[in-house]
Amino acid sequence: MRRFKFIDPGFEAAFTAFVEERRETPEEVDAVVREVIASVRAEGLEALLRLARQFDKVELDADSIRVSAEEIEAGAEACHVEVREAIAFAAARIRAYHERQRPADQRFTDAAGVELGWRWTPLEAVGIYVPGGRAAYPSTVLMNAVPAAVAGVSRIAMVTPPGRLQPAVLAAAKEAGVSEIWRVGGAQAVAALAYGAGPIRPVDKIVGPGNAFVTAAKRRVYGAVGIDALAGPSEIVVVADGANRPEWIAADLLSQAEHDPAAQSILITDDEAFAGQVEAEVQAQLSSLSTGEAAAASWRDHGAVVIAPLDEVPRLVDLIAPEHVEFAVAEPEQLADRVRHAGAIFLGRLAPEAIGDYVAGSNHVLPTSRAARFSSGLSLYDFIKRTSLVKCDEAAFAALAPATVALAEAEGLPAHARSAAIRMGQ
Amino acid sequence: MRRFKFIDPGFEAAFTAFVEERRETPEEVDAVVREVIASVRAEGLEALLRLARQFDKVELDADSIRVSAEEIEAGAEACHVEVREAIAFAAARIRAYHERQRPADQRFTDAAGVELGWRWTPLEAVGIYVPGGRAAYPSTVLMNAVPAAVAGVSRIAMVTPPGRLQPAVLAAAKEAGVSEIWRVGGAQAVAALAYGAGPIRPVDKIVGPGNAFVTAAKRRVYGAVGIDALAGPSEIVVVADGANRPEWIAADLLSQAEHDPAAQSILITDDEAFAGQVEAEVQAQLSSLSTGEAAAASWRDHGAVVIAPLDEVPRLVDLIAPEHVEFAVAEPEQLADRVRHAGAIFLGRLAPEAIGDYVAGSNHVLPTSRAARFSSGLSLYDFIKRTSLVKCDEAAFAALAPATVALAEAEGLPAHARSAAIRMGQ
Repeated sequence: MRRFKFIDPGFEAAFTAFVEERRETPEEVDAVVREVIASVRAEGLEALLRLARQFDKVELDADSIRVSAEEIEAGAEACHVEVREAIAFAAARIRAYHERQRPADQRFTDAAGVELGWRWTPLEAVGIYVPGGRAAYPSTVLMNAVPAAVAGVSRIAMVTPPGRLQPAVLAAAKEAGVSEIWRVGGAQAVAALAYGAGPIRPVDKIVGPGNAFVTAAKRRVYGAVGIDALAGPSEIVVVADGANRPEWIAADLLSQAEHDPAAQSILITDDEAFAGQVEAEVQAQLSSLSTGEAAAASWRDHGAVVIAPLDEVPRLVDLIAPEHVEFAVAEPEQLADRVRHAGAIFLGRLAPEAIGDYVAGSNHVLPTSRAARFSSGLSLYDFIKRTSLVKCDEAAFAALAPATVALAEAEGLPAHARSAAIRMGQ
Repeated sequence: MRRFKFIDPGFEAAFTAFVEERRETPEEVDAVVREVIASVRAEGLEALLRLARQFDKVELDADSIRVSAEEIEAGAEACHVEVREAIAFAAARIRAYHERQRPADQRFTDAAGVELGWRWTPLEAVGIYVPGGRAAYPSTVLMNAVPAAVAGVSRIAMVTPPGRLQPAVLAAAKEAGVSEIWRVGGAQAVAALAYGAGPIRPVDKIVGPGNAFVTAAKRRVYGAVGIDALAGPSEIVVVADGANRPEWIAADLLSQAEHDPAAQSILITDDEAFAGQVEAEVQAQLSSLSTGEAAAASWRDHGAVVIAPLDEVPRLVDLIAPEHVEFAVAEPEQLADRVRHAGAIFLGRLAPEAIGDYVAGSNHVLPTSRAARFSSGLSLYDFIKRTSLVKCDEAAFAALAPATVALAEAEGLPAHARSAAIRMGQ
């Protein structure tokens, strides 16, 4: 854990360097991924079965690679009723929030008489990567699949590494409207979704979190299909004044730290004594966490405590451009309204980030590694696309044609010029 | 040029195979690009100057790598007045169209009392790649820079390979609000924009077309910065009935073919005799085009004529998912409304695609290589991003906390559960 004080000489440089520390895909991962993708494209299903044997130690065939409708049904039934109800509650809220993101089509006639506009249509088929084992989270399924279903995507194909499928994951898949589930993970799953393999038909876009191999594969297939943002380790900034209860703030910092030793939690406070209390409370809570090992490593290696005047906080948050930021202060909007780069903002003392992970309704897939400078969380927009519309009558065409000809000629594109000029009788 | 008839046996398979023909980045390009990016990151400006010497045969230094304000002014002045006016006309129309894309912020309180919403903010800094030489188009500058300026991006950095800068390009840069222009091209320009190099400060997103090296570099830096879609060769589908003048339709087909030997133009018509007239007219027009060599190669290698009933056309267009499609028929909406995958649709006999390249106001940066299945043309949305907002009072928190705890426990994330439970006094 690092400590920074705004009043220290060299704060700005030290803090900026800390914020810009990066973890990137090592080249070796990329070389493996290139080969895996080539195998799947060349051999299709055979490659998937061979790679499952090799990496996952599982024997599959053309049938068992797909999770059957009966397995999904049985798994969902096996899910504890309290969890199943929480999944339905979360799904309903995510649905309602993303419904509000639906943009209107536009059609208008401008002063020159040109009819312009655009319309939105859903993608046809989307693939969702769900990591395996303990990291197979029902909330991942909901946050990726529900917005796709709201958008009107007709085919939602989920892939997840072979292994026992958790009941809550199957319950979430059923609730969210996932159409098919395949037992395939890693770069081979991304390749199968992008190019098709045996019974797995290609999709138009691939979303969902994964390890370094999955991320490198998404980067490689981008263009053939769409992808979501490339997810990095989770991050939280908690802005808290001294009026908070240290144990609440410590719990919030640890809620990100427990995800991954590479996760990052940063406390910013104007109260140095309070910072000390939070640090002590973090240590105390760590001892009773079953995820304490990851959380302790994250807090030790990437955690930070920043002592700074609250008025400087919006600027510091923008430097970090965090995935999540909480404003646990009396007047949260006063600071939050001045923040420009953040994936999600949680306002007040009763909005711990964890509610956003599950049930607030907003999406928990958010830009990491400072990508909030240029990108947004997952949304309905990821599952729709826009077609431009242009229509002219004679007067409108006459208004546009001369400038078209002038620019086409200036660019040395005579066929462009001719396609306008010829309609002017030239 | 290939001919397909809907009534021929095997049409569907043959046409699908034709549509799926792809051109991908060769691995050698990627290896070179990896090295260039590593050099720029390690050596900064020194690498840029060395690569300019090596690839562009130009000697630059820390001053001359930037195009001065005087050069921009003088270049803009040197631009022919008719072209300068056409640039201003186009910019005003592009500005007006993209202004209409600005989405509203949202803030609402739902039935559970949770305050939710989101707000949009512009990116701070954007880089625009403009290809060099004859392909340095003023329209490229306008279509990329004007939406960024409309979005409120405060720094718009243009890069273009060393060499003579065309007056029209400088006039467009001035008109569009470009803040700085750098003489650097290729993968090294992308690396400089992504990571910074000497006087070039890093940007948040890189847009604009380029060759295979530029595209491979954009793919590699994606994540550190945002990128636009990976542009492939241009494409047009012209849907025309027999009531059209063959020479108009031939000009439209050639207006894409002249871009690049890899461009693709497809005529779909229900009138075989008319198709023959268009083909003859294409040949006739080719002979008088200064761009005839590229256009002839494109039409020969990638062109197609499809004879099909008009009622089948929307489905065929969706298979192609083209960058541009013209409906030169009596009732264009009847067909166009059934199309789902297209970058831009031009309606009627007086809307040649070339007006969309320059002055319609819609963006000419559109998805190619079937990317219209999952992505949209460049727009205001490329230059803004969304931050989610979540706020709870006590009642709202009480409504959300139990399901949060249930899901966090089901996912094996006890610190998540605790951050909610602890606020419930548990």
